[in-house]
Amino acid sequence: MDEPLIERTPLPDALPSRLASQLAFLAEADKLKTVLRQSPLAAAGRRENDAEHSWHLALMVAVLAEYADEPIDLGRTIQLVTVHDLVEIYAGDTPLYDDHGRESQQEREEAAAEKLFGLLPGDQKAHFRALWDEFEARETPEARFAKAMDRMQPLLLNWLAKGGTWQTPGVTAATVRERKAVIGDASAELWAAARTIIGEGERRGWVAPST
Amino acid sequence: MDEPLIERTPLPDALPSRLASQLAFLAEADKLKTVLRQSPLAAAGRRENDAEHSWHLALMVAVLAEYADEPIDLGRTIQLVTVHDLVEIYAGDTPLYDDHGRESQQEREEAAAEKLFGLLPGDQKAHFRALWDEFEARETPEARFAKAMDRMQPLLLNWLAKGGTWQTPGVTAATVRERKAVIGDASAELWAAARTIIGEGERRGWVAPST
Repeated sequence: MDEPLIERTPLPDALPSRLASQLAFLAEADKLKTVLRQSPLAAAGRRENDAEHSWHLALMVAVLAEYADEPIDLGRTIQLVTVHDLVEIYAGDTPLYDDHGRESQQEREEAAAEKLFGLLPGDQKAHFRALWDEFEARETPEARFAKAMDRMQPLLLNWLAKGGTWQTPGVTAATVRERKAVIGDASAELWAAARTIIGEGERRGWVAPST
Repeated sequence: MDEPLIERTPLPDALPSRLASQLAFLAEADKLKTVLRQSPLAAAGRRENDAEHSWHLALMVAVLAEYADEPIDLGRTIQLVTVHDLVEIYAGDTPLYDDHGRESQQEREEAAAEKLFGLLPGDQKAHFRALWDEFEARETPEARFAKAMDRMQPLLLNWLAKGGTWQTPGVTAATVRERKAVIGDASAELWAAARTIIGEGERRGWVAPST
């Protein structure tokens, strides 16, 4: 799986080399559709993949941007969510409640970024790497809002599933609140809504009680 | 399937009503992950769904925008591709080479847009409907480029599959060129590349010859 997909069906030699590199990267990106997350879909009886998840975040940014506490550039925020999971093509998904996997996550993802963005022409390798770094660092309003969407979306899916990954062994409502608190760095209103949803989930027994 | 997903698990009453409408729309959007297209994935032995496809287009816009013949607003173009297939949640996918389905496509999609965007608050219903209309009308540089990506992406998947939907009965290289010609309305360079790929596919027998 780690062999670039384009090597199975090399592009015609007549294409300009810069465009051929870009198309090779875009072909490799197809693999994101095979990286499974823990979240159950609401609309079908299967788990979500990273490409579907990333698209859902882009739509959420477009619909919920009005709740950002700081002004955000909508287009840039959508770009951040579009690229934020690409490194998982090689590094795999690290579930939010998998503390063991999260220890090695940064190192695995750094290596994956180098390999994946390295398929692009040099200037674009730097550009897309910078977008991913911006998302991870959460130092810009756009990155904070993008991360908030990344935490809100599975919350919505878990609600719709009446539990979902909230029912991971060892997880309680307190764990969920702690892992979701970054929503509050981007939007007080969305964080209040998230706490309402988690609290109601706890009341209904869809997530284990905090105490 | 046409009952809104949110009705199965209504949101807590304590949420503000505007946000509750927005989350109901975002929950319904989950259904796009179940709308199958004809295109085969390169990375797995199954067909692509609309949500994955829409994400792939967003990434293509970010990577290939430099080839646009007219200046485009990158963020707006990504928004257009993010929403362009949403109406298929109710109207279904209409394959590019399905002439019968294409006759009723507009009417089915108009009704779907009314129903789907109607889940949103009134101002956002108008906003997202306008984005979809802009994509369909192809009267702005952003919409022309978005449509070009919508035509380039399956071309890349068909190449990687050594045929894919090019092998639909009755389709020849001439049909493919005719259906893909809108790429040239956005980018002469990408249209030249597309013709190179189609031509090489024809030479290798992955698409039936034109004559």
